[in-house]
Amino acid sequence: MVTSSELRRIGVADTMFSRGDMGAVAVRTIKASGKPVEIVRYTVPGIKDLPVACKKLFFDHGCDIVIATGMVGGKPVDKQCGHEASLGIQSVQISASRHILEVFVHEDESAGDDVRLAEIMADRTEKHAQNALDLLFNPASLTLRAGTGQRQGGPNASRVRL
Amino acid sequence: MVTSSELRRIGVADTMFSRGDMGAVAVRTIKASGKPVEIVRYTVPGIKDLPVACKKLFFDHGCDIVIATGMVGGKPVDKQCGHEASLGIQSVQISASRHILEVFVHEDESAGDDVRLAEIMADRTEKHAQNALDLLFNPASLTLRAGTGQRQGGPNASRVRL
Amino acid sequence: MVTSSELRRIGVADTMFSRGDMGAVAVRTIKASGKPVEIVRYTVPGIKDLPVACKKLFFDHGCDIVIATGMVGGKPVDKQCGHEASLGIQSVQISASRHILEVFVHEDESAGDDVRLAEIMADRTEKHAQNALDLLFNPASLTLRAGTGQRQGGPNASRVRL
Amino acid sequence: MVTSSELRRIGVADTMFSRGDMGAVAVRTIKASGKPVEIVRYTVPGIKDLPVACKKLFFDHGCDIVIATGMVGGKPVDKQCGHEASLGIQSVQISASRHILEVFVHEDESAGDDVRLAEIMADRTEKHAQNALDLLFNPASLTLRAGTGQRQGGPNASRVRL
Amino acid sequence: MVTSSELRRIGVADTMFSRGDMGAVAVRTIKASGKPVEIVRYTVPGIKDLPVACKKLFFDHGCDIVIATGMVGGKPVDKQCGHEASLGIQSVQISASRHILEVFVHEDESAGDDVRLAEIMADRTEKHAQNALDLLFNPASLTLRAGTGQRQGGPNASRVRL
Repeated sequence: MVTSSELRRIGVADTMFSRGDMGAVAVRTIKASGKPVEIVRYTVPGIKDLPVACKKLFFDHGCDIVIATGMVGGKPVDKQCGHEASLGIQSVQISASRHILEVFVHEDESAGDDVRLAEIMADRTEKHAQNALDLLFNPASLTLRAGTGQRQGGPNASRVRL
Repeated sequence: MVTSSELRRIGVADTMFSRGDMGAVAVRTIKASGKPVEIVRYTVPGIKDLPVACKKLFFDHGCDIVIATGMVGGKPVDKQCGHEASLGIQSVQISASRHILEVFVHEDESAGDDVRLAEIMADRTEKHAQNALDLLFNPASLTLRAGTGQRQGGPNASRVRL
Repeated sequence: MVTSSELRRIGVADTMFSRGDMGAVAVRTIKASGKPVEIVRYTVPGIKDLPVACKKLFFDHGCDIVIATGMVGGKPVDKQCGHEASLGIQSVQISASRHILEVFVHEDESAGDDVRLAEIMADRTEKHAQNALDLLFNPASLTLRAGTGQRQGGPNASRVRL
Repeated sequence: MVTSSELRRIGVADTMFSRGDMGAVAVRTIKASGKPVEIVRYTVPGIKDLPVACKKLFFDHGCDIVIATGMVGGKPVDKQCGHEASLGIQSVQISASRHILEVFVHEDESAGDDVRLAEIMADRTEKHAQNALDLLFNPASLTLRAGTGQRQGGPNASRVRL
Repeated sequence: MVTSSELRRIGVADTMFSRGDMGAVAVRTIKASGKPVEIVRYTVPGIKDLPVACKKLFFDHGCDIVIATGMVGGKPVDKQCGHEASLGIQSVQISASRHILEVFVHEDESAGDDVRLAEIMADRTEKHAQNALDLLFNPASLTLRAGTGQRQGGPNASRVRL
């Protein structure tokens, strides 16, 4: 197990487009962990504005890792935007050699049920905020769960033995 | 709240292909704000010419942010062009570490109603021009609206509480 | 209006795959303009060979702008090739900070009518060759036509007032 | 035949999302080969986190080659994630000039049969771990099998003579 | 006509996945030409391993041009792999400013007829190997055939006059 008492900086990028405040959930989860971290929050209009926000969180604000939250609308053009945002996020994390935990919720995951939508948003954000903390402070804990069907936004999947 | 009296430069990239003059709406909205900005306008034939125009607005003209407006035609090949343009715009803003507000209107959003098409074009351009100003002069105002379902080109979406 | 008497260099990239000699049309249109330009022509097998040809026209041959002509076949795999070529062309023009006017004609635009195919090829090439000249010698003339529904390969679209 | 007694370093990147522990199979296969290698294992939440993990395995951990294992879920959004991860993996290996053997299993390859899913996961991982060893220690052995319909995750395909 | 007696180096990248040995056909065609060339062959498991192989052929082995042969399977996931490989190949040739002739055969082009599959593989490889030689030793010969409907893997298409 790897531990560190060194202060780390976590970026939280989020959008005004999202119908739920996932950025606030990420901030709340990180703070509740009691880990020695500073948080930098950066809000943009929509998901396609997230990649450059992440780049600035890494290169202008010195973040060690970023959690990028966003909601993808239900129309085909929205899904294409999600794809473009994800490719941008790939590009930024590769250039920075640092992780971006992409916490995207598709509006149609909840089949029009807003209570369910809120549950998915909160659960996925909380679990990925914890993943970000684990990658920073305890990466070995991820290998202990390798290949175990971990899910964010719902229950874990069943395992198969190899 | 972050404010600044320093002169900023905003690029407005637009196309001859678009059936409405969204570039002019962007210029008008920025000027009406009374903010201390210079505007550089750069018109290209179509949306696939926008990414390099944005690059030149950043690197040759010193813009701090760019608003890129364009209309995406209704045929599959047009939508593919829109996708290619959007990926180029991702690449440019990541390399420049500066935002490009992409204001794309899909011709088929209005279902053939030109009055509606004009309304979408004007509303989306005005709101994203304001977003550009907020990112430059008052970024904290975006976080105040994080996760509130903000939309451009139509009414905002309903919020869900997390 | 911006004018210049300085000699400029225009690259014309084209393919053996195309069923019509759009490269020759581009050369003819540029020469007929009487503008002070040198033309460098570079022919490749197919559209996926165009991006690197454009890169060489910029970096090895010193071109200020490139017109890249090609025909996209009618099968799904051909359309995917067109998409890949277009993404490569985006990448090259962004890295060079110079425009590539992409003049692609899809074989299925003419619904099997070869006379129509030839008309589309010629019209689109001539208009984009003129666009290239305008971008080099008179960029302000594009802004005068911003948002006016300009089309290449057929008649212009109707305008909507914003 | 190329051989080497020099110690080489192989990265194994894997995910918590996968329903089977392919990373462990890769490690086991490499160790059983008796080749002079060190293994560095790096576990991430899901496949979209693999590209930057691979980059770090190359640039921070000095790996000569990486095996990246992951499971792609059965929904359209999962397949899009797989595509985005694969494009990121392309980008990383090109920038590093080193191979990443991508061992992705699509959940729907097994048509809901978990025994079959496990077989595919194990077979594909073992064969690609061997491919990684061959690329490092005996690249000529791949040319001997060029164009012979080699498959991972199932039986080889039939050959055609050219 | 451009000629050169200078020794050139051609890379041939191919795969074990392909059901036919297109790499050998490329080597055979180049040798039969009698041109002053050295050939470097590099075999990888599948098409997604080709881009980095091409990069190494350029930067580690000093190749002037590369012929990359591969077979794309008939399932949707295979076609996606082909797309990802093609995008990687675009990226490599742009960064190297050198051509990669991509010789991909889709397994479903032959509608299950293996004799036809072999014919397509051989014809496309031979013609693109000749294209590679022409690009190196006689680029003007390509312009002489510009816009003439040249095809690889089958008969040429008809021409239209512009």
